[in-house]
Amino acid sequence: MCSGLTLKTQDDKHLFGRNMDLSYEFGQQVVVVPRKYTFNLKANNDKIENKYAIITMATVIDNYPLIADGCNEAGLGVAGLNFPHYASFEKEPVDDKFNLTPYELPLWLLGNFETVDEVKSELENIELVDIPFNDKVGVSTLHWFISDKTGKSLVVEKTCEKLNVYDNPVGILTNSPGFDWHMINLNEYIGLKPEQPEDVKWSNADLHTIGIGAGTKGMPGGAGGVDRFIRLAYIRANTKEPENTELGISQFFHMLDYVAAPKGSVIEQENEDYTLYSSCMDLEEGIYYYKSYKSYGINAVNMHNVDLNSNELYEFGYNKNLNVNKVN
Amino acid sequence: MCSGLTLKTQDDKHLFGRNMDLSYEFGQQVVVVPRKYTFNLKANNDKIENKYAIITMATVIDNYPLIADGCNEAGLGVAGLNFPHYASFEKEPVDDKFNLTPYELPLWLLGNFETVDEVKSELENIELVDIPFNDKVGVSTLHWFISDKTGKSLVVEKTCEKLNVYDNPVGILTNSPGFDWHMINLNEYIGLKPEQPEDVKWSNADLHTIGIGAGTKGMPGGAGGVDRFIRLAYIRANTKEPENTELGISQFFHMLDYVAAPKGSVIEQENEDYTLYSSCMDLEEGIYYYKSYKSYGINAVNMHNVDLNSNELYEFGYNKNLNVNKVN
Amino acid sequence: MCSGLTLKTQDDKHLFGRNMDLSYEFGQQVVVVPRKYTFNLKANNDKIENKYAIITMATVIDNYPLIADGCNEAGLGVAGLNFPHYASFEKEPVDDKFNLTPYELPLWLLGNFETVDEVKSELENIELVDIPFNDKVGVSTLHWFISDKTGKSLVVEKTCEKLNVYDNPVGILTNSPGFDWHMINLNEYIGLKPEQPEDVKWSNADLHTIGIGAGTKGMPGGAGGVDRFIRLAYIRANTKEPENTELGISQFFHMLDYVAAPKGSVIEQENEDYTLYSSCMDLEEGIYYYKSYKSYGINAVNMHNVDLNSNELYEFGYNKNLNVNKVN
Amino acid sequence: MCSGLTLKTQDDKHLFGRNMDLSYEFGQQVVVVPRKYTFNLKANNDKIENKYAIITMATVIDNYPLIADGCNEAGLGVAGLNFPHYASFEKEPVDDKFNLTPYELPLWLLGNFETVDEVKSELENIELVDIPFNDKVGVSTLHWFISDKTGKSLVVEKTCEKLNVYDNPVGILTNSPGFDWHMINLNEYIGLKPEQPEDVKWSNADLHTIGIGAGTKGMPGGAGGVDRFIRLAYIRANTKEPENTELGISQFFHMLDYVAAPKGSVIEQENEDYTLYSSCMDLEEGIYYYKSYKSYGINAVNMHNVDLNSNELYEFGYNKNLNVNKVN
Repeated sequence: MCSGLTLKTQDDKHLFGRNMDLSYEFGQQVVVVPRKYTFNLKANNDKIENKYAIITMATVIDNYPLIADGCNEAGLGVAGLNFPHYASFEKEPVDDKFNLTPYELPLWLLGNFETVDEVKSELENIELVDIPFNDKVGVSTLHWFISDKTGKSLVVEKTCEKLNVYDNPVGILTNSPGFDWHMINLNEYIGLKPEQPEDVKWSNADLHTIGIGAGTKGMPGGAGGVDRFIRLAYIRANTKEPENTELGISQFFHMLDYVAAPKGSVIEQENEDYTLYSSCMDLEEGIYYYKSYKSYGINAVNMHNVDLNSNELYEFGYNKNLNVNKVN
Repeated sequence: MCSGLTLKTQDDKHLFGRNMDLSYEFGQQVVVVPRKYTFNLKANNDKIENKYAIITMATVIDNYPLIADGCNEAGLGVAGLNFPHYASFEKEPVDDKFNLTPYELPLWLLGNFETVDEVKSELENIELVDIPFNDKVGVSTLHWFISDKTGKSLVVEKTCEKLNVYDNPVGILTNSPGFDWHMINLNEYIGLKPEQPEDVKWSNADLHTIGIGAGTKGMPGGAGGVDRFIRLAYIRANTKEPENTELGISQFFHMLDYVAAPKGSVIEQENEDYTLYSSCMDLEEGIYYYKSYKSYGINAVNMHNVDLNSNELYEFGYNKNLNVNKVN
Repeated sequence: MCSGLTLKTQDDKHLFGRNMDLSYEFGQQVVVVPRKYTFNLKANNDKIENKYAIITMATVIDNYPLIADGCNEAGLGVAGLNFPHYASFEKEPVDDKFNLTPYELPLWLLGNFETVDEVKSELENIELVDIPFNDKVGVSTLHWFISDKTGKSLVVEKTCEKLNVYDNPVGILTNSPGFDWHMINLNEYIGLKPEQPEDVKWSNADLHTIGIGAGTKGMPGGAGGVDRFIRLAYIRANTKEPENTELGISQFFHMLDYVAAPKGSVIEQENEDYTLYSSCMDLEEGIYYYKSYKSYGINAVNMHNVDLNSNELYEFGYNKNLNVNKVN
Repeated sequence: MCSGLTLKTQDDKHLFGRNMDLSYEFGQQVVVVPRKYTFNLKANNDKIENKYAIITMATVIDNYPLIADGCNEAGLGVAGLNFPHYASFEKEPVDDKFNLTPYELPLWLLGNFETVDEVKSELENIELVDIPFNDKVGVSTLHWFISDKTGKSLVVEKTCEKLNVYDNPVGILTNSPGFDWHMINLNEYIGLKPEQPEDVKWSNADLHTIGIGAGTKGMPGGAGGVDRFIRLAYIRANTKEPENTELGISQFFHMLDYVAAPKGSVIEQENEDYTLYSSCMDLEEGIYYYKSYKSYGINAVNMHNVDLNSNELYEFGYNKNLNVNKVN
């Protein structure tokens, strides 16, 4: 379970981030990948040297960042979200295609592209192949949410039929089923609105709203991806552009809270599935804001406060302590 | 729109708090009311001298704290939540009763009682009267959520029929209609559960869950008090006792987020109605934790860090700045 | 599970009837009870002689009609609907009250009153007592739906608190919880409407209705009494007065179908619970229309086609054969 | 709005039919099309001579049956259901395909094929072209539901992408969006069941079902095709095979009632949209059962009671009179 979001502010900042809903931690921490980071492709003998520095939530194995979500210094953002039952990758590399594994995709995109338009064009030439990272780490069933400083966003889904690349007019993503299914489903909920419905008379009974919020009656509230897609699309559609970056970041996290899973709400095979962390990246500034479930408050890591020409990954510990501003 | 909550931790802390959902600010700030605070009763010529010190979110007018929610040094907590269409107070003081106005009730309760049992007994003798605070400030249509260090909680509702005092077995409260109505309504939702439903076969189709969280399908997600009551009762019922206070506070705010209103979700007469602040009081320690919509992160005020025998109110400014923990 | 309904036609007929939802048959058949039918009261030694002839769906035991629903020649209609968890009758007869058992109530009302107003006045003096009919037949947990040729209707509910008599402005009834609870609940659904919602834009996505009927999105469709109350109140509120009796009867059964339980939809302790029969009485004409689950089509029994001054009950067999109009 | 259904009985009858939901009448009546009926194809100069006799609900224009739904003497059934926003036919005939117009498809299929397997194979070679029937009668935006005496069924949908032919494992169809979308959506509702959920404890509150039918809480009840698909798939999946044909026909109409639209429930451009008629064909016997909204009861036309080798269409007037079985 995951939810991705974009939001623009009145001071022209583009915020991009996600909820990571999981039943376990995966060694995640904020990692800065400097320019010219080099990695070997799994599907052939090529080596890739990245162009752009990246800031990301990732787990690092053998000096390799397995990226959950991140952005680069050029303002491109990429997040992988779970896509169970539908994600289906090629068993073997495909001729005449640039073959990538699913975990290489974000690293390659963030390392080498600036805009959604560039990415969209490049994706015509790629194929995604199911080659495990190592003996212990396989390939996750993901789809990807990609955005940039123009505010455009894309969804990339590789199913048993083909590699689909969708323009994303609602600026959000959740989980299965596919993006086109969710977009059709949204039409079912066009009656939801922030305003109150009018009083009515049913037979001889005068009916009135019991309290405010009655225009949202019927809003689905389940934890599944179908319900979260509707909720997140609704709140994004009804959010006014925040006046400045600070208000935008606050609003962004409040919007993610609207689809978050508190501990206890969902059990997956006897483990609690919950919103492990929420992230919000300032694509213009290269700052990665996140809150862990335990820290509750917002933490920030600025990629420009490290040497982006270094030849080492920068790892910042994952904050699990409650952030409290003690007033007295 | 408001939501009240209690939660016990494994280290025997009792947390009590609420979401304040409003379309405007009301001059709210954290206020400590010291011991022996004295005020005149509106309905007669009596003067009350409080026994206990109080920490509260309130607006102060003429050195008088109009309390939204708070707790006292003895561990009693009281919150007023909106109860539109149903709250109905006496027009005139009632003979043989201790007559209070709605805004005096929290001040009197917090100033003089330690436990829910004490309060319950006293409430048999009181009546609530509709006398405005002053020319500009009238009486709000509230009901009250009361809890203490035993974990018991009460709901107090004055309707056109009578003053109802309910034991509260679910440890939460939202808005209209009345508490007994909500408790009946909960029975409609007993099929909601954190676990996944099993795969089924419908005719010749094998059906399976699309993702995790399918046990919560049908969870109402509207912003109204009816839907929030179900959601909050659900998450409280399914929350495991947090291991310690810090985890408890984090969990408490996550639970309040589960019923919070982000800006944009609800419009009331052309104004956005949203979760202005969320509070969580540690009833044992007398610490008032809160997050404002803008600050996002948690702020804390400790009543024991001021002189509780002072003869002045302590006012702590309401934090509207984004709380960020800058990692680098 | 049961649902009661009233409907007026443009030719001033008042239709009254119900769905009987059960998991078993109870020996039901159409019974005409002639004038001057006499029966002994269970709670004392009085004997009652009825004034009016009655037509009813009932099971007859020892020449005594146990009435499910019916109407009298004066145009009063009464139906008993299940009220589990809430119906609670006195253990002993109450002094200074006219004590009746629940199964005597419809027989007495139909035998002696013409209008809802008369009934309402009489009900102030009665009490309902839990005395079984015989060793095998106890007291059912019912509440009652009562209407007349003025179109007014009442609901009578005896709970552990008191005997409640409610004016019924929506002209329908289903099951538990109490009528006042349902009436509050209706307010939650004021956004439902026959008309289509307008197209909207969410972020950059143009949304439109997928098909007609989109104004009813959010209509609850469960088999329980809470959902059926909303559905039946909705369709009654949105039904235009039928032009004549024949169209009225057709519309009446279509409305009952809107809340009917087909076999398979509900299992109660391993038995299928379904709409055993649906009835529609023409209160002006004294005709009892009904369809059994198996007959599907409508059957009609006219009370004025028998001798209403007879001293015997008339029993008409319950039709279980499929009614088919063979065109060729 | 329309709903299609199949049902098998224990005596090996295969029932096939539908609700026709419309806001107007279209001159519909039961029509028997005899063997060797001949018609000219719109897309070319070919002439088709049918093989099988057909019984159908149709409007006849210039001796040509425009078929809404029907079956042939060989036991194939075909129904056209509205598919707005998605149905999209070729502008011009397509080379190397057998080009048909949408209104020719049922006439050709029923006239020439016996089984779903035959049809499925033939459909690989056809294309559907948008050529109006005449100046006044254009092409409807339909998809088709096809079944036979083996109980198999198909869905045929021509969209802007391609002609899709789906095996139908749930034996039902409604309206837009496409069949594959609905089949994914069903997975969201796997928690619905006829049985009662168990009592639970939420915090300290003991919750129980208010009445029977609680396992269906969350069943969508809107009039749109999305909600009807779920309802109809649910009731078909939970219906036991009826013991004989008569019980099967009764059950079939009760199931259609479960998704029917009573007058008043839906308004389309100021007209009431309602279930104009419901049909149920006995594919083995060639009997067309239907109920009109006004007749309410079931009418039957048997194709074998006319001369199927005639060279004229047989038209049976559409029954609009209330069918009543007068018992006395």
